[in-house]
Formats: sequence, structure tokens, C-alpha cells
Amino acid sequence: MTEKPAIIVDLNFHPEQVREGLRHAFSGRGVINRLDPANDGADLSKAAYALLWKPKADLFQRATGLKVLFSGGAGVDHVLTLPGLPDLPLVRFVDPTLTTRMSEWVVMQCLMHLRQQVAYDRNRRKKIWNPLVQPEASEITVGIMGMGVLGSDSARKLKAIGFNVIGWSKSGKPVDGVEMHGAESLDAFLAKTDMLVGLLPLTPETRGIFNGDLFSRLRRSGPLGGPVFINAGRGGSQVETDIIAALNSGRLKGASLDVFETEPLPATSPLWEMDTVMMTPHTAADSDVSALFAHVERQIERYESGQPLQHLVERGAGY
Amino acid sequence: MTEKPAIIVDLNFHPEQVREGLRHAFSGRGVINRLDPANDGADLSKAAYALLWKPKADLFQRATGLKVLFSGGAGVDHVLTLPGLPDLPLVRFVDPTLTTRMSEWVVMQCLMHLRQQVAYDRNRRKKIWNPLVQPEASEITVGIMGMGVLGSDSARKLKAIGFNVIGWSKSGKPVDGVEMHGAESLDAFLAKTDMLVGLLPLTPETRGIFNGDLFSRLRRSGPLGGPVFINAGRGGSQVETDIIAALNSGRLKGASLDVFETEPLPATSPLWEMDTVMMTPHTAADSDVSALFAHVERQIERYESGQPLQHLVERGAGY
Ligand SMILES: NC(=O)c1ccc[n+]([C@@H]2O[C@H](COP(=O)([O-])OP(=O)(O)OC[C@H]3O[C@@H](n4cnc5c(N)ncnc54)[C@H](OP(=O)(O)O)[C@@H]3O)[C@@H](O)[C@H]2O)c1
Ligand SMILES: NC(=O)c1ccc[n+]([C@@H]2O[C@H](COP(=O)([O-])OP(=O)(O)OC[C@H]3O[C@@H](n4cnc5c(N)ncnc54)[C@H](OP(=O)(O)O)[C@@H]3O)[C@@H](O)[C@H]2O)c1
Repeated sequence: MTEKPAIIVDLNFHPEQVREGLRHAFSGRGVINRLDPANDGADLSKAAYALLWKPKADLFQRATGLKVLFSGGAGVDHVLTLPGLPDLPLVRFVDPTLTTRMSEWVVMQCLMHLRQQVAYDRNRRKKIWNPLVQPEASEITVGIMGMGVLGSDSARKLKAIGFNVIGWSKSGKPVDGVEMHGAESLDAFLAKTDMLVGLLPLTPETRGIFNGDLFSRLRRSGPLGGPVFINAGRGGSQVETDIIAALNSGRLKGASLDVFETEPLPATSPLWEMDTVMMTPHTAADSDVSALFAHVERQIERYESGQPLQHLVERGAGY
Repeated sequence: MTEKPAIIVDLNFHPEQVREGLRHAFSGRGVINRLDPANDGADLSKAAYALLWKPKADLFQRATGLKVLFSGGAGVDHVLTLPGLPDLPLVRFVDPTLTTRMSEWVVMQCLMHLRQQVAYDRNRRKKIWNPLVQPEASEITVGIMGMGVLGSDSARKLKAIGFNVIGWSKSGKPVDGVEMHGAESLDAFLAKTDMLVGLLPLTPETRGIFNGDLFSRLRRSGPLGGPVFINAGRGGSQVETDIIAALNSGRLKGASLDVFETEPLPATSPLWEMDTVMMTPHTAADSDVSALFAHVERQIERYESGQPLQHLVERGAGY
């Protein structure tokens, strides 16, 4: 019996978890973990698969026998811009462990804005007991830009909590129980939105889409006294100087950011000190390493048994 | 046509909203708003109904013709301890506007503990970019003590987000999709609980129930590194010195409190300055005044047309 074709694992994150996870993954198949210095001189030319996230620069020169590429994350903007990227099928990471975590983050951020967490926190630090007037979730429309795997799960959970939810995507394709808007009706979508949630991939079309002009088209008459911007897609889709200006002028009432134009966010960014902003360090939905390996195993199994791969990236669209 | 029997409104909260709401409520019926000084000498003896929350001391001496009492809130501990309380049917406030707000608060608190909001906030204030290891909602068991109107709605919404949810109530009566425990299996319930949510009424049986002994029986092996206590029932059910001691010793990992033994919470309470504690000033689920009036109107309509009243308090049980 010949050994199954090998996989190169070139993941530039969580080295401990990768090493540990690999002890139980890809059994019966050669694994070349590029985080392991013992593999520095390994022959990569026989491997059929590569699982990658910010891989080492020489990967594609040396791994000349690849058949399928796997992204270590849900987003593929980092992969599609790699120099020398071969024209091979590219599978992205889609998994309930990631989707669920993203929805936790989105629901939590929407609730913290609804329930005036920042104001209560500020009062609390001064030992001020001051009940605030409290709108209900159903009085708020959350508008989600990007209604794919993540956006549509967040929509479902926001609705379960009581929010009114509308969605916007390129195609405007239907999502159960959500009023959907396509590319051409962005204006109508924004004019109804009190809390704007960004769950878009970063592509040439979405770069810088969250800018001052867009913020000025959001609904201003909602019960929160102004719109809120929440982004967990990619930092490249937002213009941080515009976010800061909109918050300072009151055009935006608040923001929650998990992603930034430059990560880690530089210490010089004013965002760090703005109390209208909530932020997390790109941890809205971490890839769970064992779930990632299980997903790649499933797709390789499909591929080797002649079934079509799932979650394929469309190169032309960029996601 | 004789006028319909009058109602006394003796609500010691939101005076503006009460006055405004009364302009549109109880049409065709006399209304005596006791917040209005013009009513100080009014004859209360003909009124059939009283809607009350911390009423003026002379209410029951003067309102001798009452047939039904209505509580201005969901809890009735304040009503049942009023001196001179007549032995009349007492209807409490149950309404989706209140239930929804409570579930928003409970889901938000559970998510903030799950997603390590306090730790991220602390890092953020120091401009530290530090991704933390992140368990998923499904790895956490939320145990709710008090599975009535509020507890069971919170359970449903926590489940929608992905949490594992179990419940405990006096009767242990079934709640859809939730593993229920009755009074006799408190130990088994606590031993499975990572996040304990209190949504109990205050009665002689529940006074001081959230104490150090109970906290020591919660699960300690969960992925958060220790149990969390969340209370939005009544402050009289918790022993604050025990909460503080358990947090200081690490027996509790964190807490979220909306209710306190004394409200407003005295400035001398150490809780104000403990960064393991999140708190709000008894605003988890405010009574919406117009929803309250509509609810009372509905019940009076039932009563006057011979249908049974709903949401009646059982005096013996105290809720
Ligand atoms: N912060 C984090 O921790 C984290 C974690 C994971 C993922 N992410 C980000 O989240 C993104 C979304 O993930 P996903 O799995 O939901 O992706 P997905 O399933 O591919 O969905 C993408 C959505 O964006 C829409 N879209 C793409 N380009 C558009 C454009 N130019 N105009 C309008 N709509 C456009 C798509 O429209 P159609 O439906 O018409 O195709 C689709 O609804 C990822 O690309 C990644 O960048 C962030
Ligand atoms: N913080 C706020 O803003 C706020 C707002 C509204 C209400 N509240 C509080 O929330 C409480 C609950 O409201 P609700 O509408 O859900 O009340 P409910 O429908 O009457 O439910 C009470 C629940 O507690 C259980 N229970 C009562 N005494 C018990 C005991 N001794 N041992 C075990 N279980 C016991 C009941 O068990 P059974 O099912 O067996 O009867 C029931 O499941 C109110 O009483 C009020 O104090 C707080």
C-alpha cells in the first residue's frame, strides 16, 4: 500500500496548538510542519496539499507538486496576494466553531451598544448610580454588510435576541427572514440602519468601503441618538481617519472594531483612547486548530474520492 | 351610562412617563394619579383598582373599596410586605417588553464573561494587543435559578447563541429543551454550572440563597477557570460579603450584578471598585410605563367581563 500524498502545514499562528493538533491529524499521510526547524531542508516537491496562513516565502518555489491549497482562515485576502501563488483550487476555512464565535462577538457588541455599556461603565467608575432610558432591541435595525456564512448566522442570532435585522450583499440573494438588499440598493439599506455590522471579505471592491461618505448615509433618527459602526470583516475595508472624525463630530455615536488597517493597532492610533470605541485584537472568531485540521481532512477525503471540493474561493471575485 | 370604576395609580417611579402615559390610558375611567399634588385630598374610597409601586403610606387606609391590586413591577416582594395590605387578588406585571429586556441583559452578561471583556478592557487601557484563548459558548453550561417567565425566555435565547443551559426551580417543571432540576437536586445542578444566573423572586425561602456555601458547590473545572455569578432577581437573595470573599479568594472568577442588598448601592461597598464585577443600577429590565398601563387595562377588561385574572400572585408562596 502506497502512502497517501503528503500535506505541507505552513501556519504562522498558535505554534503550540498546531504541533499538538498535528499529533492527532492526517493519519496515514506525510505531514511537513514548516514551524518545525527539522523540516527546513525537507523535499516539498512531492506534497499534494498545502495548508497555509502567512507561509514562508519559498513555499511555492519548492512545493511544485501541489494539487489543492487550503487557507488557514475564513478570509483569503492574505492568500490571494501571495507572490507566486499557483493557479490551483483554493479552499477556505468554514466551520461551525468559527461561525459561532463570530456570532457571539457580533451579538455581544450590538447588545453592549444597545444597553449603553460604555456609559454605565463610566458612571460606575465614578460610583454614580444612574438608571438610563432603555430602548428595546426591536426598536433597533441592525444592517449587516456581507451576508455570507458569517453574516447570515449573526443575522439569525440577532433576530433571536429581538433585533430587527436587514442585510446587504453583492447578489442580494435571499436569507431566511431577513430583508435583503443587493449592491444597487445600498442607499435604501443604509437609510434604515441604526447599527452597521461589517462582515465583508477584503477585495478590491470592498477596500475602504466603510468611509465618511457611507457613515453619513446611515439613519440618524433611531432611539440611540445616532448610528453605530461594528466591524469584524477586515481592517482594509475601513478608513480609520474617517471613523475617528465621524465619532468626534457625533456623526457616529459609537464603534466596535476587531480589525484594523494595521495590526497590531499601532500605539499611536487615537482609537486606543477613544471611549466611544470598543475594541478587540482580531479575536472575534479565531480558527480552532483541531477544527481546521478536521475540515481539511474532510475536504481531502472528498477530493481523493472524486467528490467536488467545498468552500472554494472564486479567484475573480476575490473571496 | 355610569362611569367605569376608578383606578388609583400610586407609582413611585418615572413621574414624567407616568403622567405622559396616563394621557392615553384608562379612557372612560376615573384615574387618581397620586404623584399629582392636586389629588392629595381626593376621595379614594370609591376606586376599585390600585396600581402600585412603593405607594404612599396612607393608601390602604383610604382606599377602602378596592377589588384588585396591580403591582407596577414583575417582582412583588415590595408589595407583599406593605403594612395593612388587604387580602385581595394581586396581579403582577408580565409583558414581552420587560421579558425581552431581561434576556438582552442576561445574554450580554454571559457573553461578556465568555469573551473575557474585562481582561480585554484592561489590556486596551494599557494599549496592549493580546489575543486570549477563547472557549466557545457550547463549552459553557449556564445554570439558571428561577425558570419562570424571565428565566425560561433567557434560557431560550442563551441556547440560540450556543450556550448549554440547565434550569432549577421549585417545581422543576419542564421547560422546552432545557435539562430541569427541582428543589431536591440543587447539588447536581450546581455541580454542572459554570455560569450561575439568578432570576428568582425574593421570598422567605430565597432570601440569602446566593451565599458562600452555594458558590463553593459550583463547577470549578470549566474552561473559564472558575465559576461566574450573575444576578438580576433581587438583591435580598444574595449575600454580598460572601460574593466579595469568593471573588477575592478566586472561588468565583467573576460576577455581574444588577441588584443589591441596599439600592442604590452605598458608596462604601467594595463592589464598586472590584474589576472582576460588572454592574448596572437595577436596570436589567425596566417596566415600560405604557406597556404596564396596557397590561392593567387588559386585566381589568377580563375582570369586568367575568374572565379570570392572569399573572396572579400566590400569597402563600410569596410570588
Ligand atoms: N475578525 C475575525 O476574527 C474574522 C474571522 C473570520 C472571518 N473574518 C472575515 O469575515 C469575512 C466574511 O466571511 P464569510 O465566511 O462570511 O464569507 P462569505 O461566506 O464568502 O461571505 C461574504 C459575503 O460578502 C458579500 N460580498 C463580497 N464582496 C462584496 C461586494 N463587493 N459587495 C457586496 N457584498 C459583497 C458576499 O456577497 P454574495 O453573497 O453575493 O456573494 C457574501 O454575502 C471573511 O472574508 C474574513 O475577512 C474575520
Ligand atoms: N432586575 C430587574 O430589573 C428585574 C425586573 C423584573 C423582575 N425581576 C425579578 O425577577 C423575578 C422573577 O420574575 P419572573 O417573572 O420570571 O417570575 P416567575 O414567572 O414567578 O418565576 C419565578 C421562578 O422562580 C422559581 N422559584 C420561586 N421560589 C423558589 C424557591 N423557593 N426555590 C426554587 N425556585 C423558586 C419559580 O419556580 P416554579 O416554576 O416552580 O414556580 C419560578 O420558576 C421577579 O420576582 C423579580 O424579583 C428583576
